[in-house]
Amino acid sequence: MRPNIYKFGELIKDVTTHPATKRTIEGHAQIFDAALQPEYKDILTTTSHLTGERISRYLSIVQSPEDMIANVRMKRLMFNLTGTCTGGRCVGFNAINAMWATTYDIDHECGTQYHKRLQTWLKDAQHRDITMTGALTDAKGDRSKTPSQQCDPDLSLHVVEHRKDGIVVRGAKVMICGVAASNEIFIMPGTGYKEEDKDYAISFVIPRDVNNLTIIETRRPNDTREQEEGYDAPVDIGGITQSYLLFEDVFIPHEHVFMCGECTYSMKAVMNFIAPYRAAIGGCVAGQGDVIVGAAALMARANGLSEKVFKEKLTQMTINNETTFGMGIAAGVLGKKHPSGVWIPDTLLSNVNKVHVATLPYETKRLAQDIAGGIAETGCLPSCKDINDPRYGKLLKKYLQANCSGESRAKIARLIEWLTIGSGVPGCMHGGGSPDGAKLFINANTDFARDIELAKRLANIKEDIQVEQKKK
Amino acid sequence: MRPNIYKFGELIKDVTTHPATKRTIEGHAQIFDAALQPEYKDILTTTSHLTGERISRYLSIVQSPEDMIANVRMKRLMFNLTGTCTGGRCVGFNAINAMWATTYDIDHECGTQYHKRLQTWLKDAQHRDITMTGALTDAKGDRSKTPSQQCDPDLSLHVVEHRKDGIVVRGAKVMICGVAASNEIFIMPGTGYKEEDKDYAISFVIPRDVNNLTIIETRRPNDTREQEEGYDAPVDIGGITQSYLLFEDVFIPHEHVFMCGECTYSMKAVMNFIAPYRAAIGGCVAGQGDVIVGAAALMARANGLSEKVFKEKLTQMTINNETTFGMGIAAGVLGKKHPSGVWIPDTLLSNVNKVHVATLPYETKRLAQDIAGGIAETGCLPSCKDINDPRYGKLLKKYLQANCSGESRAKIARLIEWLTIGSGVPGCMHGGGSPDGAKLFINANTDFARDIELAKRLANIKEDIQVEQKKK
Amino acid sequence: MRPNIYKFGELIKDVTTHPATKRTIEGHAQIFDAALQPEYKDILTTTSHLTGERISRYLSIVQSPEDMIANVRMKRLMFNLTGTCTGGRCVGFNAINAMWATTYDIDHECGTQYHKRLQTWLKDAQHRDITMTGALTDAKGDRSKTPSQQCDPDLSLHVVEHRKDGIVVRGAKVMICGVAASNEIFIMPGTGYKEEDKDYAISFVIPRDVNNLTIIETRRPNDTREQEEGYDAPVDIGGITQSYLLFEDVFIPHEHVFMCGECTYSMKAVMNFIAPYRAAIGGCVAGQGDVIVGAAALMARANGLSEKVFKEKLTQMTINNETTFGMGIAAGVLGKKHPSGVWIPDTLLSNVNKVHVATLPYETKRLAQDIAGGIAETGCLPSCKDINDPRYGKLLKKYLQANCSGESRAKIARLIEWLTIGSGVPGCMHGGGSPDGAKLFINANTDFARDIELAKRLANIKEDIQVEQKKK
Amino acid sequence: MRPNIYKFGELIKDVTTHPATKRTIEGHAQIFDAALQPEYKDILTTTSHLTGERISRYLSIVQSPEDMIANVRMKRLMFNLTGTCTGGRCVGFNAINAMWATTYDIDHECGTQYHKRLQTWLKDAQHRDITMTGALTDAKGDRSKTPSQQCDPDLSLHVVEHRKDGIVVRGAKVMICGVAASNEIFIMPGTGYKEEDKDYAISFVIPRDVNNLTIIETRRPNDTREQEEGYDAPVDIGGITQSYLLFEDVFIPHEHVFMCGECTYSMKAVMNFIAPYRAAIGGCVAGQGDVIVGAAALMARANGLSEKVFKEKLTQMTINNETTFGMGIAAGVLGKKHPSGVWIPDTLLSNVNKVHVATLPYETKRLAQDIAGGIAETGCLPSCKDINDPRYGKLLKKYLQANCSGESRAKIARLIEWLTIGSGVPGCMHGGGSPDGAKLFINANTDFARDIELAKRLANIKEDIQVEQKKK
Repeated sequence: MRPNIYKFGELIKDVTTHPATKRTIEGHAQIFDAALQPEYKDILTTTSHLTGERISRYLSIVQSPEDMIANVRMKRLMFNLTGTCTGGRCVGFNAINAMWATTYDIDHECGTQYHKRLQTWLKDAQHRDITMTGALTDAKGDRSKTPSQQCDPDLSLHVVEHRKDGIVVRGAKVMICGVAASNEIFIMPGTGYKEEDKDYAISFVIPRDVNNLTIIETRRPNDTREQEEGYDAPVDIGGITQSYLLFEDVFIPHEHVFMCGECTYSMKAVMNFIAPYRAAIGGCVAGQGDVIVGAAALMARANGLSEKVFKEKLTQMTINNETTFGMGIAAGVLGKKHPSGVWIPDTLLSNVNKVHVATLPYETKRLAQDIAGGIAETGCLPSCKDINDPRYGKLLKKYLQANCSGESRAKIARLIEWLTIGSGVPGCMHGGGSPDGAKLFINANTDFARDIELAKRLANIKEDIQVEQKKK
Repeated sequence: MRPNIYKFGELIKDVTTHPATKRTIEGHAQIFDAALQPEYKDILTTTSHLTGERISRYLSIVQSPEDMIANVRMKRLMFNLTGTCTGGRCVGFNAINAMWATTYDIDHECGTQYHKRLQTWLKDAQHRDITMTGALTDAKGDRSKTPSQQCDPDLSLHVVEHRKDGIVVRGAKVMICGVAASNEIFIMPGTGYKEEDKDYAISFVIPRDVNNLTIIETRRPNDTREQEEGYDAPVDIGGITQSYLLFEDVFIPHEHVFMCGECTYSMKAVMNFIAPYRAAIGGCVAGQGDVIVGAAALMARANGLSEKVFKEKLTQMTINNETTFGMGIAAGVLGKKHPSGVWIPDTLLSNVNKVHVATLPYETKRLAQDIAGGIAETGCLPSCKDINDPRYGKLLKKYLQANCSGESRAKIARLIEWLTIGSGVPGCMHGGGSPDGAKLFINANTDFARDIELAKRLANIKEDIQVEQKKK
Repeated sequence: MRPNIYKFGELIKDVTTHPATKRTIEGHAQIFDAALQPEYKDILTTTSHLTGERISRYLSIVQSPEDMIANVRMKRLMFNLTGTCTGGRCVGFNAINAMWATTYDIDHECGTQYHKRLQTWLKDAQHRDITMTGALTDAKGDRSKTPSQQCDPDLSLHVVEHRKDGIVVRGAKVMICGVAASNEIFIMPGTGYKEEDKDYAISFVIPRDVNNLTIIETRRPNDTREQEEGYDAPVDIGGITQSYLLFEDVFIPHEHVFMCGECTYSMKAVMNFIAPYRAAIGGCVAGQGDVIVGAAALMARANGLSEKVFKEKLTQMTINNETTFGMGIAAGVLGKKHPSGVWIPDTLLSNVNKVHVATLPYETKRLAQDIAGGIAETGCLPSCKDINDPRYGKLLKKYLQANCSGESRAKIARLIEWLTIGSGVPGCMHGGGSPDGAKLFINANTDFARDIELAKRLANIKEDIQVEQKKK
Repeated sequence: MRPNIYKFGELIKDVTTHPATKRTIEGHAQIFDAALQPEYKDILTTTSHLTGERISRYLSIVQSPEDMIANVRMKRLMFNLTGTCTGGRCVGFNAINAMWATTYDIDHECGTQYHKRLQTWLKDAQHRDITMTGALTDAKGDRSKTPSQQCDPDLSLHVVEHRKDGIVVRGAKVMICGVAASNEIFIMPGTGYKEEDKDYAISFVIPRDVNNLTIIETRRPNDTREQEEGYDAPVDIGGITQSYLLFEDVFIPHEHVFMCGECTYSMKAVMNFIAPYRAAIGGCVAGQGDVIVGAAALMARANGLSEKVFKEKLTQMTINNETTFGMGIAAGVLGKKHPSGVWIPDTLLSNVNKVHVATLPYETKRLAQDIAGGIAETGCLPSCKDINDPRYGKLLKKYLQANCSGESRAKIARLIEWLTIGSGVPGCMHGGGSPDGAKLFINANTDFARDIELAKRLANIKEDIQVEQKKK
């Protein structure tokens, strides 16, 4: 592919070997490896309802509660195997499902051809078995204004030219996960668009190296360690990248455009995205939580203490893990089938889980630091380079040893640092939308009137008690 | 039935009219009423796998994830309709399911006839459509000793005589819910029994008014209000009773005995009970939570304030409700089928939910008191009798009024008192076992070794780090 | 005194012997007893700055950090001794201090004589060593309206006639603690009054049995138990009453009026009240927490388990106790001296403590129920009357025994019920004002502009970033 | 001074200019600057009780509640000014106070001369106005063993030779804060030493560049950014260093030795350290919390949103800040005077505060990330180098802008990253000892027997209920 990814001012020629991207490639590659293992095969692959062939689950349409359960399990598994996020696939997976339902509705109501186009492209994508990321978040500018009210019209991605064979778009999608590992990028619209924002209501798919697209990797905690030798960046087989995608008049042919101007459907598209995403993300958080539990228990042992000493804390960590996992399962199972065939999880439970996902892992990480001791709390130990220094490295190893060698203890401490205050920390607070946004949905999905009627019936209250109308 | 229930030293002649029991009867009666309503029919009834007839779900065998979902929904519904617990049915429901699997295993391994007996009895019970409660908790005595170590052998229920036609038992089951509303009582064994405790490993069913059984109702918060006129006991259509069952040499014929001496199966029986019980109880807590949300929102309005003022708090209450509900669904769905046909929910998730059930409702109640103001916090208002006093009642009504009449406001305050610090509060902390017990299961069901391996693989640590064996 | 207190429609002739009031009398009497004990003398008494004589601290002016520390300790002590609230003194104590400063300011700025009057009255009150409660909360009516906007002008207490020798007031003060135990009642104004509400801006003192004042006791959780024999109301030496005071044109002579129409000072008066009250209440909650810790540890022992089993929980309970106590100390110490001589605690820390006081005890109570088991969670055991029944009482005692007699175990369970879901629960959520009100103060007392400047200085940001003015 | 500090294998020649150390120097230098400002002078300086001269508070003996209040305020101030820890002074400050009392006791009971020596040295140190850090934490090795049981005797610092003019020590002190900024280092003993560990019971002071001492800087989150140009390490005027001090037979002359072999006093020394340290650290956490509040509010504005939108969250952050601050004040004030003149804060409240300090800031940080959005959660934005890239930097600035320039927004995001998941995060969990250790103290300082007696008295229980003796 055409090199178009930059970091620290440098153009990355080969993403598979460059230290800034190779860990995320490695993590995504584990998906392919694991899919070949009998124990994981049913989680990572499924049967295409389009072709009947075995395909990656990441390129499938979710059609049943069982598919959602497998989705949640898949996310937990991949965090188990990489210790962190492989977001270069799951966002894309969610995006095609969200647009599967949305294009179906648009076509039925507006007589467009989006669903057909999506189907054609998807069949081909399944066949090619591509890695495809998804991109939602616009730069947005001032959060109190709509796209068309901004001082600069480009602050959300929009159409700047309609050609007879396609459209030309300008703007940026930001904080996009796993782009370096992807072949293609699936673009979702933002939400809350009105008629005057219709040029912003767009969805399409592009090759990662499409012309006029420039990709800048964000810098993340401790990312320069990834450019060093040694174990200070303790995990080689997984890693996150998050990118700013700069669209400088990118052309997209019609057959890859799945929404263009249907602003009233942009909210729907995002809703269709949110329900499965905020359900399944509970698997992610549980999966990293498993690793955090393991790392904390291992550190306890390395310090000479049985993990039984920390039973209360480890139990609480498990409760946190299983809560986001379980709520993901519940939201997934209690959904309903969209006419297009997509199974859409329960919105209320999905959003409740988003709040847990934005809260519980913080406690899990705190408890891991509590168990692990000062050495791991902020990674408070000498660098790998120092530990191997010919002059004083031997002394450092001597003083780092406890119930294991100093080097093993250093590695575990670095792993906990990575998981709790380093590059391994995924953006679970705002990834897939903010908890405040989720709370709005929760509020909107709670039937207070019904609950009030339950209370009135029980206490035998007949009086009508209203407050809304009389206040302005 | 023979009157054998006492409270405050008085023998209750007619449980349907006596103020100490009529509210629980009323609550349980709502089950039958609701089962006739089309919207609730599929939740409250199902098809017998024994006869193919429509039966109460409370007398059914849970055979699938869908059955477990219906179970959780049923519990939520009944709390919605009664504002509190109708425990006179769900414990029995769980008990027959637990013993369905347990008797199947005992028979297969020991050549006994328990499962057959249970099947025969159940078919008949379904046909008779009985209300049947379940009873687990023994008096127990000193918690640091086993039944046979106690100073008094009767501190757990046990066989004192084996007759050729049945057994005779002595002891007590305590804190048993809804006995007054039941036709029969299903007895479960306790747990952790060894060979020397085999006389304690018993399960059977009895009519509620069996000879030599005396039932003493416990006194609960504010229960004397139930003996008064007016709305200080604000709910007439639901209520809890909890009893001490005193067995003074009760005879049980063999055909109603489902375990007798198989001490190694008592743990299994309790495990089979716990999994569905601790899953479904999440529905209970959510169901009462719905009413608490409604009561708090109504109180806000009564005080002249829109519930929007308390959006953050109401959202948190909803999160709590949906978390116990969702975790119940997840535990229910992720179970597995026992060879006897019973669907047994996931033990880990069930026990995680037990911890939530013992924690989250306390926050929900606190938030309700927070929203409602001082009047409802501890029910801080004059009695109904005073509010209707001919001398000063008019003044009290005048000063109680806000955005509704003083009387409606008084009723809402009493409802919140009842739900948060009164007779409506169910024993969700220890009902179905303590949260500390649940944490033991969670700990036992967490695969720390696997988690440690995940961590070691990620950080590329080969050294074997053990701590157990070297410590004594 | 003239009998003017009613409960359940009955006029209470003698408050010291009537079951509805004698426990609160007993609790308040413990103050006098304890003041005579050498170990408590310095906490409960101090030297009058008016006369130099030894007086009850409850009738003193708080003049130093040391006085505030003693205040917090006094509140903790009285909860230790009574298990609950002796609110019939501390509100009055706070009220005279609040008005000491407020009248000083009014006199200085308006040329009135209130401070002088207060001084004269206080000297006499100290000499008579009276028990005096304080009363703030008005009936209020619709919370979205001011007193003068209400449909009924009496919904807050107000002047209805100015006579040359005094004023006549009408309205109600509600949820007033410990009135039955008091000789006099000190009335505080409400807050937020504007010019049109000036008739509501009043403060005065009255004898408890003043003409045209009718007092109705509220009914509280489990209060009818107090009318029974036995230990179901487990505590005889302490108890709460809360009253509705109905003022039907009560006359107050000028010398007992300390504010009358100075509406701009009503906010100040309340602020002067809040700072010490919300500081010292941390002592109350800690004091009850001590008893809850003791009761939970005792129940553990009674159940046969060492309290060490529950170390984690008991430690958390202690943390909660010491947090409200410590924050009370800190708020008290960091105050400043008002020109009138009153020491006024730190408003920010006082209000932070109010939030803790409305939150932490709920966790403490939950943990007590967790430790104590099902028997205490909702007081799930037979009544004292049943336990002593000649027919089956012996059996109940037998089955209630564990690591102590059944009767002791029953008493401990009732104590925990009383402390956590019974009459002993004080109104710490809304007493002294709501936590939401406290949060408003916290917000108003946080200097966000300064914090923003700290952040900008650190990150070397010069740009002026404002958002207020450009939004409407 | 002799260069003896290494990082990344490099010997740091000049700590004031080397990027690895200059920020911590800068932070500590702010202490001197601020001491000259009238508004901060009384916080940062005080009068020597030895000489009557104005000295740095960091070199003073804490003699009163007012001194402790100033100590807590000083810590809050320095976090306000540096955004992070200036631990190179406060640990030393606490250490001299702890040893002031301890040496006094040893001398009185053992006839030694330590207190005199300390006095002489301190007078001189005050005169020289040195910066002096303190060092407690030993390497320790296997946490289940005492120093003398370790496989290597050097795992805690110990005397290896007694000379007539001094002692020679070997071992390591690890995770020592601010060493690079210090002139001298004050060594405290560890704790729990028995007779066989007496060579470990040592306290002394050394110049930072003493012979045979090698110092290795730990690597902390994002520390390589400090070696770059630009604002990715957003704060220039503060920063943490933490070191491993390797003692390879360091000689200390007798006049600088303050404990040597008095193993029974090592626990006392540590206790004397803990009480003021765990009190005052509440000021640190509050001080960083102030900055976090400011940064979050600023980010909200930068995003175009008023901080009022996040009122609930900001209020909670303030509650957290004021709680650790207030508890520090309370612990400080409620202490008692040691015969040596040192004021020793309350142990129970100090340790309660340690638990808050290890818990509440995690919530504060989480809330900051919640308010700030995805850009700040994990610092998810391009590097400063990329933002200034001649090819695409202009585009990045365009897309980063919101309600302020892109560059300001980037700086704020980096500041929040630094404060919540970067180099600015201080080790408040384990600094000054672990929260689990604090809980042991809390437990030991709670008088359960007294609490049980309170409960028994209230419920009128005479029976003696014991459990300890009968269990083994």
